[in-house]
Amino acid sequence: MALAHKGLHAEGLPWRFIEKSRIAASGQERVPVLVHGDTWLHDSWRIARYLEDTFPDRPALFAGPGGEALARFVNSWADTALAPAITKVIIPDIPDGLHDGDRAYFVESREQRLGSLQALRDDRVQHLDALRKVILPLRHTLRDQPYLAGDTPDYADYAVFGMFMWARCISPVELLQADDPVHAWRERLLDAHGGHARAARRAHG
Amino acid sequence: MALAHKGLHAEGLPWRFIEKSRIAASGQERVPVLVHGDTWLHDSWRIARYLEDTFPDRPALFAGPGGEALARFVNSWADTALAPAITKVIIPDIPDGLHDGDRAYFVESREQRLGSLQALRDDRVQHLDALRKVILPLRHTLRDQPYLAGDTPDYADYAVFGMFMWARCISPVELLQADDPVHAWRERLLDAHGGHARAARRAHG
Repeated sequence: MALAHKGLHAEGLPWRFIEKSRIAASGQERVPVLVHGDTWLHDSWRIARYLEDTFPDRPALFAGPGGEALARFVNSWADTALAPAITKVIIPDIPDGLHDGDRAYFVESREQRLGSLQALRDDRVQHLDALRKVILPLRHTLRDQPYLAGDTPDYADYAVFGMFMWARCISPVELLQADDPVHAWRERLLDAHGGHARAARRAHG
Repeated sequence: MALAHKGLHAEGLPWRFIEKSRIAASGQERVPVLVHGDTWLHDSWRIARYLEDTFPDRPALFAGPGGEALARFVNSWADTALAPAITKVIIPDIPDGLHDGDRAYFVESREQRLGSLQALRDDRVQHLDALRKVILPLRHTLRDQPYLAGDTPDYADYAVFGMFMWARCISPVELLQADDPVHAWRERLLDAHGGHARAARRAHG
């Protein structure tokens, strides 16, 4: 979304969880990784900062230094509150969509952190209820304005939307109720930049 | 803090929970209420917006429209995530500090919402643990920058800080660990504007 916001295109390369060596040049083992010329970048926030510095004449991802400072809070909330709450709901759906070579690694590493995936699936209704409490600040904000950043989206929106996109791509579970302002906001972002996000492949059809 | 940020002074009037009629001109029953000339205002966010519009030449409470939009998210997070988590920890301490005329009203109305205050006190350790998870986005953000708004505080900081000040004024419980970046941030805001917040009276000495 940050690339699309800047009107930039990057080639997307399929990648498997166990292919750590293919992204070793980034100095770590997790995606997303962006390669621009000789520069390897990782971590969504750093990538967004890099794009903002490298392409300053294109549409801004941050509303100046003050906007960037507050976007960091939104980004931290997405990482530490929203992502764990979404994970508990959807992670049991992931192994089915994985390549055979990834499945054992994925289940083992995630169960070490989160406990049994089957237990998470059994308690899905409770985890979905918990998620709907976690998104209260999002709901309250989006009752009063179309985007977190105001009248148009910026990186603060994309940092949060990315978590919902991750869920959309790997799970058939509907996280949001149709009358939730967060649902309407997600629809607007699915349509943004020529429907870029809506066109993304989904593992469950 | 918003008034101090603007370099303005308002006379503070003691008020009791059951004195609803004294603030009836605000059109509702809750504090804070600010009276400026013939204008009655309530709700911290609306008061801050009013101050920003009415005193535009004084230091800005919001970093432009983009900053204000994101501050609304921070404010919503403070209201819907932080305040309930702090409430569960400190509310059992409140009745002791209340005027006799308020105590029965307070306990009855809060127990209707939250259940037995004694049960909350018995489970205080768990509620403190839960609070320390809720403040993760704050901790992550303040590891990287001195204030939510960046190098200097603005209304986004005050909206969150206000919840900690409420706790400080009515409970002796220390909510934050000394090595938490949120603790250092709270200290900076206690010292801000000539130590305005640090000078506030505390119910428990």
